[in-house]
Amino acid sequence: MRRFVIGSARSLIERSRQNYQSQRPLISSSYRLLSSTPAADSPSSSSSTMAPPVALNTINPKVIECEYAVRGEIVTLAQKLQEEIKTKPDAHPFEEILYCNIGNPQSLGQHPITFFREVLALCDHPTILDKSETQGLFSADSIERAWKILDQIPGRATGAYSHSQGIKGLRDTIAAGIEARDGFPADPNDIFLTDGASPAVHMMMQLLIRSEKDGILCPIPQYPLYSASIALHGGTLVPYYLDEATGWGLEVSELKKQLETSRSKGITVRALVVINPGNPTGQVLAEENQKAIVEFCKQEGLVLLADEVYQENVYVPEKKFHSFKKVSRSMGYGEKDLSLVSFQSVSKGYYGECGKRGGYMEVTGFGADVREQIYKVASVNLCSNISGQILASLVMSPPKVGDESYESYSAERDGILSSLARRAKTLEDAFNNLEGVTCNKAEGAMYLFPRIDLPEKAIKAAEAEKKAPDAYYCQRLLTATGIVVVPGSGFGQVPGTWHFRCTILPQEEKIPAIVTRLTDFHKSFMDEFRG
Amino acid sequence: MRRFVIGSARSLIERSRQNYQSQRPLISSSYRLLSSTPAADSPSSSSSTMAPPVALNTINPKVIECEYAVRGEIVTLAQKLQEEIKTKPDAHPFEEILYCNIGNPQSLGQHPITFFREVLALCDHPTILDKSETQGLFSADSIERAWKILDQIPGRATGAYSHSQGIKGLRDTIAAGIEARDGFPADPNDIFLTDGASPAVHMMMQLLIRSEKDGILCPIPQYPLYSASIALHGGTLVPYYLDEATGWGLEVSELKKQLETSRSKGITVRALVVINPGNPTGQVLAEENQKAIVEFCKQEGLVLLADEVYQENVYVPEKKFHSFKKVSRSMGYGEKDLSLVSFQSVSKGYYGECGKRGGYMEVTGFGADVREQIYKVASVNLCSNISGQILASLVMSPPKVGDESYESYSAERDGILSSLARRAKTLEDAFNNLEGVTCNKAEGAMYLFPRIDLPEKAIKAAEAEKKAPDAYYCQRLLTATGIVVVPGSGFGQVPGTWHFRCTILPQEEKIPAIVTRLTDFHKSFMDEFRG
Repeated sequence: MRRFVIGSARSLIERSRQNYQSQRPLISSSYRLLSSTPAADSPSSSSSTMAPPVALNTINPKVIECEYAVRGEIVTLAQKLQEEIKTKPDAHPFEEILYCNIGNPQSLGQHPITFFREVLALCDHPTILDKSETQGLFSADSIERAWKILDQIPGRATGAYSHSQGIKGLRDTIAAGIEARDGFPADPNDIFLTDGASPAVHMMMQLLIRSEKDGILCPIPQYPLYSASIALHGGTLVPYYLDEATGWGLEVSELKKQLETSRSKGITVRALVVINPGNPTGQVLAEENQKAIVEFCKQEGLVLLADEVYQENVYVPEKKFHSFKKVSRSMGYGEKDLSLVSFQSVSKGYYGECGKRGGYMEVTGFGADVREQIYKVASVNLCSNISGQILASLVMSPPKVGDESYESYSAERDGILSSLARRAKTLEDAFNNLEGVTCNKAEGAMYLFPRIDLPEKAIKAAEAEKKAPDAYYCQRLLTATGIVVVPGSGFGQVPGTWHFRCTILPQEEKIPAIVTRLTDFHKSFMDEFRG
Repeated sequence: MRRFVIGSARSLIERSRQNYQSQRPLISSSYRLLSSTPAADSPSSSSSTMAPPVALNTINPKVIECEYAVRGEIVTLAQKLQEEIKTKPDAHPFEEILYCNIGNPQSLGQHPITFFREVLALCDHPTILDKSETQGLFSADSIERAWKILDQIPGRATGAYSHSQGIKGLRDTIAAGIEARDGFPADPNDIFLTDGASPAVHMMMQLLIRSEKDGILCPIPQYPLYSASIALHGGTLVPYYLDEATGWGLEVSELKKQLETSRSKGITVRALVVINPGNPTGQVLAEENQKAIVEFCKQEGLVLLADEVYQENVYVPEKKFHSFKKVSRSMGYGEKDLSLVSFQSVSKGYYGECGKRGGYMEVTGFGADVREQIYKVASVNLCSNISGQILASLVMSPPKVGDESYESYSAERDGILSSLARRAKTLEDAFNNLEGVTCNKAEGAMYLFPRIDLPEKAIKAAEAEKKAPDAYYCQRLLTATGIVVVPGSGFGQVPGTWHFRCTILPQEEKIPAIVTRLTDFHKSFMDEFRG
C-alpha cells in the first residue's frame, strides 16, 4: 500500500503544528470592522497588556506551512557555494554553479527574441520613434508595432495604470491569437493580464478556497506553486497520481477514485489542476485524454484550471499541444457547460522572458456575478506591469511572413526550440545510461524528472543526516559538481520512489561536460553506497 | 455618539452574510494534504454527488467582503459614459471623462522623466548600447547607467528571474539612496523589491493576520488597499480617526484609546498602518508626532507599517518628509527595538510611473527566522518585474549634479512638483469657495479630501436611490461634468460627515475649466436641494 507524502513539506508542517498547538483559534476566518468611536480629547492611560513581538510562533501558520522547493534549501546552499567560489575560485571542485533547478532560460545564456525587445524598448521610450537614427537601430515592423501598441493605450501613456484586466487593445490582440491557435472564438473580456502566471493561479485559489474543507485536485508530481498557493489560502490539496510507467499518464479512473475518496472525507473538491505540457514530468496529453478530462470536469462540476504555460514547448513530432478550450469547444461545450481557466506566461515557450513577469488567464464559463468578483480582486492590485502586458500580446502575435523581422524572428525561435529538443534527448539518454536510473521522455516543457533507485546504504546515510534520500542525493550532486537540481520530494512522488527535476536549459555547448560530470558523480556515489 | 461606518462596504458585507448563513464552516482555516493512495487499474464508478457550480454563494466570502472603492461603482459608471461619448460625442454635457479618482498622473497627460525611460529602453534592448546611432538618441549618462545596471545583473540577463528579493546590485543602489535620504545605514538585505507597493502590503498582512482575532490599526480615512487586504486575509480593521479639525492630525491618545478598546474585545492588535504623506488626507506628519508614534509602537509591541509612497510629494515649505526609519534611528532605536516596514513605489513621487509596477519594502526589526518566512512567500512568486526593479533603483538614485542629464532631469522634476503644488492650492481654494464645503490643505501626496455639508433634502434623495449621500453627490457630479471623484465612504469617515477624494492630477491648463464645472455643478446641486 503506497501512501502520499511530500516529505519535507510534511515535516515542516509537523514542526509548525507543534509550535502552534493551542494558539490557533477555532473560529472561522472572516472579515470584521471593529465598531468603535473616535477618542475624546483626553489621552487614556498607557498600555495595559503588552502584545507579543512578531515571532515564528505568532505569524500566520499558513505561511509557515507553505513550501516552495524550487527556491528552497538546495538553492540556498548553491548560493552559498557561489559566494565561496567568488572569493576563492578553487574552493570547490567546479568553476561555476549550474542552476538546473528552475525554468529560467535567460539566466543560462539564452538570448531574448530581438523583435520582442525592440518593441519593448520603443514602447518604453516612444519619443525616439520619430527620430531618423531609430530606423538604423530598429526593424521597420518593430517601429510599426510600437506605434500600433501606443495607439491602443489611452493617451499613449505607457506609464499609467491600465484597466485592471489589462489594456483593452492588447487583450484584443491576445484574443485574436487564441482564436488563430484554436479555431474557436475568444473574447477579450475573458482575458486577465497578470504579472506572470503565478498571481493568476493565486487569484483563482483565493476565489475558490473557503476553508480546509475545500479541495483542489492536483497532479503528483506537481509544480509546487500549486501546493504553496493552496497552503497560503488554507485549502486541501487532493492528490492524483500520474502514472510513471506509462510516461506520466493521466488516468481519469485515478481522478475519479481520488475525487470519491476525498468526498467521503467531507472535502468539497472545487477544481482540477492539469499541467499540460507537464511540469515536472514533461508529458504532453493526447487529445482523447483531454476530452475525457473535460467530460470528467463537466460531470463532476469542477473548475478546470489548465496550466498551459508550456504550450510552445513540444519536442516530439507525434505530439501536439491542444488547449483545453479548443478541446472543450470541439466537443460542443460552451460557456454554460464548463468553468475553465487557461494560464499562459511569457516566462516559458521559446521566449523565456521570466524577468518580464507577463502572463494572462483566459476565464470562461463563470457567471457575470462571479466574474465581477474576479475583476474586483484584480482591481485591488490595480493592474499588471505594462511591459509584461505588451510582451504577452507579442508572444500571442509574433511577426508574420512578409514582415521585415519574420526571417530573423523565426530563425531565433526555431533555433531555440530545436536546440531544446536536442538537449532534452541528450540528457534523457544520459540519465537512462546511469545505473539504477530511469527517465521518461520530455515530450514537452523544460524538465526531466528521472527516477533513481537508491542503494539501501545511501538511504541510511540520508537518514543519518535527517534528509530525504533524494534531497541527500541532490545535495551530494551539488557539492561534487556545482549542478543544482530539485529533489522529487518537492514535487510529490509515490512513497518509496525517489526522483529529481533537472531543467534542459543549460546552453548546448555545455551539455557534454554536464553529462560527464553527472555520470562521474553518479558512478562514484553508487560505488560509495553499494551494498 | 459617533459610530464607525464604511457605508458601502458594510452593506455589501451584510448582503454577502445573508447569502452565506449556514454555509460557512465553523472551523479554522488550515492547510491539509489529503492522505490517499493512487488508484488501482480499474476505474471506479462515476460521480456520486454533484458538486455545486461556482456561484456567488460558493466562492470565498472574504473575496465578497473585500471592497476597493477607488475602482468601484463610480468608475464603472464613468467607463460606461466614456463608451457612450465615443459612439455619440454629444450624448452628455461634457466632451471627456476626467479621471480624478486615482493617483495615475500619466493617464492625465504627465510625461515620464526622460532619463528614467532612456535607461529602461536601453536595458530592454542592450544590443543597441554599442551602436553609434545610440549616442545620437540617448544621453551619455543614460548609456553609462544602463551599462552599470547590466553589470549588476548576473549574466546581464534582463529576461531572467532575479533573486526573489530583487537584483542584489539594484538593492545596493536603493540602500545607498535610503542612507543618503536618512543619514542612517540601510542594508540591501532588508530590501524586498515588489510589483508596486500593493503586493508588499499584502505580504505583510498575510504574514501578520492569523484570524479575525488579529487586528490592524488603520487611519480613518484610509487608502482602501488596507481595508481590502485585511478583508482578503480575514483580519479585523481597527480604526483610528484622523482629526479633520486639526488638518487631519494623528493623535497618539486616539491610537491608545482604540488599541485598548480593541484589546478589551479580545482583538490582538498586530500592527499600526501610518500613511505619510497622507492618502486621502494629504497631511504631512511633524517629526515630533512621528517620534510619539514610534514610541507608541515600541511600547505596545506593534509592527509599524509605514506607507511612505508619497515621500517626494510635499508641497508646503513648512513641512518636510521624514522617514519613520530615520525618526526611530534618531531616537536611538535599532533592530531590536522596533519592527518597521517602509513601503515605497515608483507609481507616485514626481515620476508617477504607475504602469511600471515597481516598488519595494524595507523590512527592519524582525528576527532572522521570520525574515526567512517573508523571503519564502516572496519566492513563491519568484520575483518582481525587472523593469520595475530597475526603475525603483533609478528613483532612489537619480542623475546628480555634473551628469549630462542632470539639468533636464531636475527641470522635469521641479516642473512637475511645482505645478502639483499650484494645482493643489487652486483646487483647495476652489473647494473652500463652495457653499457648505471645507477642505484641508494638501501638504503632500496627490489628493484633496473636502468635506461637504449636504442639505437634508439631498440626503433624502440619496436614500431614495439607496445610495450613501456622498456617493449620490459624486454620481451627480460625474453625470453633470464628467469629473470622477471617489465618495468618502470608500475611505471611511466620521459618521454623519460626507467627503470625497479628488486627485490634484489633471494637467494645469485644464484646472480653470474644472473649477468652473465643479463650481457650477455644486451651485445647481445646492439650489436643487436647498431646504
